[in-house]
Amino acid sequence: MPGADRAAGPSGQEPPPAEAPRSQEDLLLAAAYVSDAQYSRNVPFETSPQAIRLYYFYNHWTMRAATNVFIFIDLSLALFEDPALFPLPFLATSLAEVLCLTAFFGRLLHFAKVTPQTIFWKDTKNICIMVTIVLTLVDLIVYGSLEAINIHSVRWSRALRPVFLINFPESRQIRRAFRSIRNTLPDILYVFLLFMFNMLIFSLMALKLFGNRGLKTVEGAPYFTDILEIILELYVLVTTANSPDVMMPAYDFNRWYSLYFITYIIINTYIFMSVFLAVVYNNYRKHLKNEIRKLVYLKRYKMIEAFNLLKVKVGTEFVVKEAEWRRLTKVVVPDISSSHLELLLRISDEGQKGYVDKANFLRLADLLNIQVITTSVRRHPLEAWMPHAYKSSGSLFIQKVVQHRIFVWIYDAIILLNAIFIALDDKKPHISYAEWLFLSLYVIEILLKLYTYEPKAYFGRKQFWNWFDTLIIIAALVATVASATIQSARKYNSQQILDIVLVLRILRLLRVIVSIQRFRVIVTTLINIGPTILTFGGLVLVVYYTFAIIGMEVFQGKVRFFDSNVTTPDALVCGNPALKDAAFARHRYCKNNFNDLAASFVVLMELTVVNQWHIIAEGFALVTHPTAKLYFIFFHIVVVILIVNIFIAFILEAFFVAYSLDKSDIETAIERKIQELGVGVQEEEVQGADLIDHTDTNDSCFNEDERDRKRKALKGSYFRIASKKYKTVDALLQRMFESEIAPEDDGPSLDEILSFSPSDIYQRNPNFENSA
Amino acid sequence: MPGADRAAGPSGQEPPPAEAPRSQEDLLLAAAYVSDAQYSRNVPFETSPQAIRLYYFYNHWTMRAATNVFIFIDLSLALFEDPALFPLPFLATSLAEVLCLTAFFGRLLHFAKVTPQTIFWKDTKNICIMVTIVLTLVDLIVYGSLEAINIHSVRWSRALRPVFLINFPESRQIRRAFRSIRNTLPDILYVFLLFMFNMLIFSLMALKLFGNRGLKTVEGAPYFTDILEIILELYVLVTTANSPDVMMPAYDFNRWYSLYFITYIIINTYIFMSVFLAVVYNNYRKHLKNEIRKLVYLKRYKMIEAFNLLKVKVGTEFVVKEAEWRRLTKVVVPDISSSHLELLLRISDEGQKGYVDKANFLRLADLLNIQVITTSVRRHPLEAWMPHAYKSSGSLFIQKVVQHRIFVWIYDAIILLNAIFIALDDKKPHISYAEWLFLSLYVIEILLKLYTYEPKAYFGRKQFWNWFDTLIIIAALVATVASATIQSARKYNSQQILDIVLVLRILRLLRVIVSIQRFRVIVTTLINIGPTILTFGGLVLVVYYTFAIIGMEVFQGKVRFFDSNVTTPDALVCGNPALKDAAFARHRYCKNNFNDLAASFVVLMELTVVNQWHIIAEGFALVTHPTAKLYFIFFHIVVVILIVNIFIAFILEAFFVAYSLDKSDIETAIERKIQELGVGVQEEEVQGADLIDHTDTNDSCFNEDERDRKRKALKGSYFRIASKKYKTVDALLQRMFESEIAPEDDGPSLDEILSFSPSDIYQRNPNFENSA
Repeated sequence: MPGADRAAGPSGQEPPPAEAPRSQEDLLLAAAYVSDAQYSRNVPFETSPQAIRLYYFYNHWTMRAATNVFIFIDLSLALFEDPALFPLPFLATSLAEVLCLTAFFGRLLHFAKVTPQTIFWKDTKNICIMVTIVLTLVDLIVYGSLEAINIHSVRWSRALRPVFLINFPESRQIRRAFRSIRNTLPDILYVFLLFMFNMLIFSLMALKLFGNRGLKTVEGAPYFTDILEIILELYVLVTTANSPDVMMPAYDFNRWYSLYFITYIIINTYIFMSVFLAVVYNNYRKHLKNEIRKLVYLKRYKMIEAFNLLKVKVGTEFVVKEAEWRRLTKVVVPDISSSHLELLLRISDEGQKGYVDKANFLRLADLLNIQVITTSVRRHPLEAWMPHAYKSSGSLFIQKVVQHRIFVWIYDAIILLNAIFIALDDKKPHISYAEWLFLSLYVIEILLKLYTYEPKAYFGRKQFWNWFDTLIIIAALVATVASATIQSARKYNSQQILDIVLVLRILRLLRVIVSIQRFRVIVTTLINIGPTILTFGGLVLVVYYTFAIIGMEVFQGKVRFFDSNVTTPDALVCGNPALKDAAFARHRYCKNNFNDLAASFVVLMELTVVNQWHIIAEGFALVTHPTAKLYFIFFHIVVVILIVNIFIAFILEAFFVAYSLDKSDIETAIERKIQELGVGVQEEEVQGADLIDHTDTNDSCFNEDERDRKRKALKGSYFRIASKKYKTVDALLQRMFESEIAPEDDGPSLDEILSFSPSDIYQRNPNFENSA
Repeated sequence: MPGADRAAGPSGQEPPPAEAPRSQEDLLLAAAYVSDAQYSRNVPFETSPQAIRLYYFYNHWTMRAATNVFIFIDLSLALFEDPALFPLPFLATSLAEVLCLTAFFGRLLHFAKVTPQTIFWKDTKNICIMVTIVLTLVDLIVYGSLEAINIHSVRWSRALRPVFLINFPESRQIRRAFRSIRNTLPDILYVFLLFMFNMLIFSLMALKLFGNRGLKTVEGAPYFTDILEIILELYVLVTTANSPDVMMPAYDFNRWYSLYFITYIIINTYIFMSVFLAVVYNNYRKHLKNEIRKLVYLKRYKMIEAFNLLKVKVGTEFVVKEAEWRRLTKVVVPDISSSHLELLLRISDEGQKGYVDKANFLRLADLLNIQVITTSVRRHPLEAWMPHAYKSSGSLFIQKVVQHRIFVWIYDAIILLNAIFIALDDKKPHISYAEWLFLSLYVIEILLKLYTYEPKAYFGRKQFWNWFDTLIIIAALVATVASATIQSARKYNSQQILDIVLVLRILRLLRVIVSIQRFRVIVTTLINIGPTILTFGGLVLVVYYTFAIIGMEVFQGKVRFFDSNVTTPDALVCGNPALKDAAFARHRYCKNNFNDLAASFVVLMELTVVNQWHIIAEGFALVTHPTAKLYFIFFHIVVVILIVNIFIAFILEAFFVAYSLDKSDIETAIERKIQELGVGVQEEEVQGADLIDHTDTNDSCFNEDERDRKRKALKGSYFRIASKKYKTVDALLQRMFESEIAPEDDGPSLDEILSFSPSDIYQRNPNFENSA
């Protein structure tokens, strides 16, 4: 158990360890701790040499990739099972499923070998996976045997498949989002009950006020006469989907009745829905903070463990020798470049004393997390090849023109002109000629830029906007050529390819974003919160999948879509006579059905967008049973009230963090060191102006001597931090929290860390800064 | 000028003032400062004795009320002007308007007399008011003369009327909300442009992808063939109002096209709309903080001014003598009770030294803001009247039963039973008898409670829930009696009264909230954020009013409503042939018109709710001109993108502040003092349990001697803080910010305070606490 030797460890009361080089086992164990800290993995593992090797294997990328592939296969089975998009026999899909289950079981077994037995059995994740595997097998056998004697039953265990997506340790973010939902439930429950209670009172009022007036809706149905129908109508009104139609009969009868509906909307749609958002957001923040605190302390705890394994006593303090440190880092990151390793050592061993002290050692995981790009200054190849021609006055003039602001503006104008030409009809020949003209102008632009800037620097690994720009032009070029080829062949054989070509040709207009600084900033922010949005995508996938499987079991085949040229009476009611006169058929929603996974996802997306959801719900209630509406109401509560609000909380939080980061850059030690050593390329300057590498060359002209001396030690390389922006809200918050705990603070004990609760944070008095 | 003598003031370098009692003028000036600080008024005023008296008159409640009445009259003129709800001749309304303008001008003149000339002319508020008055007069004259020669023109100046509501100094909150919008505009502009740009690119794609396919909408119209129409449709899709109808033709044609719409919705509806919320919220927070900082420093500045006017030197420090302090407080709050004054003095003059030092003096404005309720412990009148009967075992048993938890539960069950009876048809006689049974049960409950608890304490000034409960029952009683009377008279002569009666009878179900603790907490929070929501109501009123006036000028009479029993062809197209076949007429939206102010407000409300707004917009475009759609799009941008987001920001912020307050109560000095003096009634206990005054009586039994002694000094009164909850987000934030500035900090100079900018706050590094 890692906790055992720790109590004595940080206090330093044990005798100093022998000076002999550490065993390979200790080094591996320490490297495992550092690697866990680096990737914020929190799997408790056995410390026996064999277990450590197994643990390395467990974390190997091939194993993780294989698990993800099996999860993907398992989830996509729904495409091939009845009701299928691409039908396969039951035997094939069930064999594939058994294969996946075996893989999951193997992964779990592997995990059980790595982690201590007691912890393994206490973890609900593992229990969940095992129960799901067993249930799925049982369902498969039962369904298979019933099928064999021609009884059609329900494959209910398919709805459980997302359990694997949630519970395999790689999907920590999705699990946290689910925990966040679970934690929000008690708080939101009472608000929801009050909201329901309020809705009931309004329903009773509506019944009394309008029930006996003999009013009719636009369709001629009786208006507000049945209490259950009123409740449903008022719930739909909260979602605004039937506004203002639901009000019109009463409003037409007497204008004062509009007050009833306005009051209802203000209270329920505006105030209650905002309170839901506030409760969800508040809980999200609270739990996020708590988890970050846990993560940070666990990271520190692991780094201390690693330190204790490798430390030796030098003078009065414990340190890690340089040689040990190098070996450790090489085990953690096998493919680290030697110049990068040297840079990290310089940062960790500030005074070049031949050892790394504790405070610097603890930072190792963070240092490894910062992507450092090694670049070297090169002259333009043309300059090396034909220096006279490249440095001639004509050539210099071209370079000056290309670097000038007006050059950018001219090309912006060209793009806008291009947009107008695209909007015009491209069947006319002179417009399709213009197409070629624009494309050649863009290609000339790229060539001019490559002439002016050093190509390798222009297409540097993190030069996002240059890549973006060039790829768009290449795509447009390919698209236009393809389109011309297809059109000249005069057979539109592949509609999809033609569509993609069309889209690509229009996407080139996105180039405008590149040249408008403010747009670029917004897009960069959006790209930075991208990973957060993707996590959210995982969450939505889980919920959609479960609802889609249930929906397919209940509603498959009830509503059918007929091609638009079929005009039989059957086609007008989506193949189901129950839909006669229903708004569902009138709006021609026949294709909004649950007849396969893809169609189900589209319907669920429409339900998420909310508008007209009551018509879809009513349609499916008509073809099955009125209680089917509960499925749609429940979906609305889960997705719109909970998940969309969590999404908004995600975005708000990500935006605020990105905003506060924008205002005060946290300069990391690594950046300062790079600057100190004079081997830095200032990213802002590179990004801000278009003068790629120009700055750098300039920069290195100053006090060349001293810099050169330093640079030589690092083998003539230049370094650049890949991105100063922290990619996720997590990472930034971790950084912020770390900056608030003292370096000598060893943190609470492991048990305390694991039992942190969000309410602890709120014990302090609220203060002005964090409250508004 | 108040700033002149201040530079020397706090530093204490001037010679000690004479010991003679202050002139009445100094006292009045000091009282004006204290009063301004108390109500956070920030009007710079002249310090000459005459100007101070004028200033007192300016702030007198009658003057403020009169101004508000005139604003109300001015705004409601729209009800009587053509197109009128209650028509009045032009002469009458124009005379009323001139009267209002005179009053506004008078108020402005009064203000000009009070404030220094230079400041008056620099203030945009005053310029705004003057310009509006002049413009309105010009418009009145022009319109009147044209009307006289029978030319009908436009009364455009009516749209300017809300200027008075915004700019008279009483509506600081609304002004701040407007400032917040104005400050948000630059930040939101670029996001909006990017959003529009993105929409244009998607529109071009839609044109290319779907334009040539010959698809038809459900109505048979060509689908996505005109670029302007596509842009409009896609804008409507962002608001979700035409989802999924706008997708169906393309989706029916090819299922892959759903990807186009799903991408569009994710990017534009979800991500961009969330970013709008984030930008608005972020700006709101930033500016709110800045304004609070300004307010707090201005308050402190004013209190220092007041202190400097009254201070005398005692020993080494400047203080205010007790007598001066008493006179000052009596001028500021003329109707303060002597026991309350005594209590405040005890708090301010801790050691009873006969003077108040600077730190305590500066707190005076806050002390005055805390509502202290003076109560005295009384025995139950029945106990005094017939002590034996009241203390008999039977009577005591009844009291015990009433105080028991089960008593509450029984009544909850009764209320729920009552709800079921209400839902049933009340035409049947035995159900209407049950009605009387329930009512008598409720009355018995109230009587029992009055028997058990002391009536004056039960109906204490701040016993909100008791009042709520009793009023609901009385209302229900009155309603049922009225309903029975009307029904027995067998003539339903007044539908409105009957409706109100119905609503009142149902509202009694709200009593359930009183007995469920968690519901009460939520409702209390909602009531606490009530004032904030009302401010927001003012903001909405201003925007609605302006849009309504414009809408009435443009659209009046174009759409007419016919009673539902009129079935002429004219009625089916809302009296306008242009609406033939339009969705507007098909949905029977004829009553959604701009034919008077009330109808316009209802339409604007429907547009705010968003659903079906495109149908309303299309209807009014058909009866006028296609560009009329711009009015509706502009309304959507202003109200839904800006104002509704500010509303959500309001609610989120209010909720977070209420939440953080809930977790850590800020104990004020006044509360501690009340407790110290032993004259307190613990509000939590009174509110938490149902044992009104019971606790208190109990409490005072302990160490009676010492408490009695103290109490006598305060003339036998008990005190209670009216509410620990700060009513507004403002008040709480002020308090929080104050707790962070040191008492001896005199703050920046007046000029510095007035030029605070929100970016100052963000100069510090972000920290973990305030970022998530």
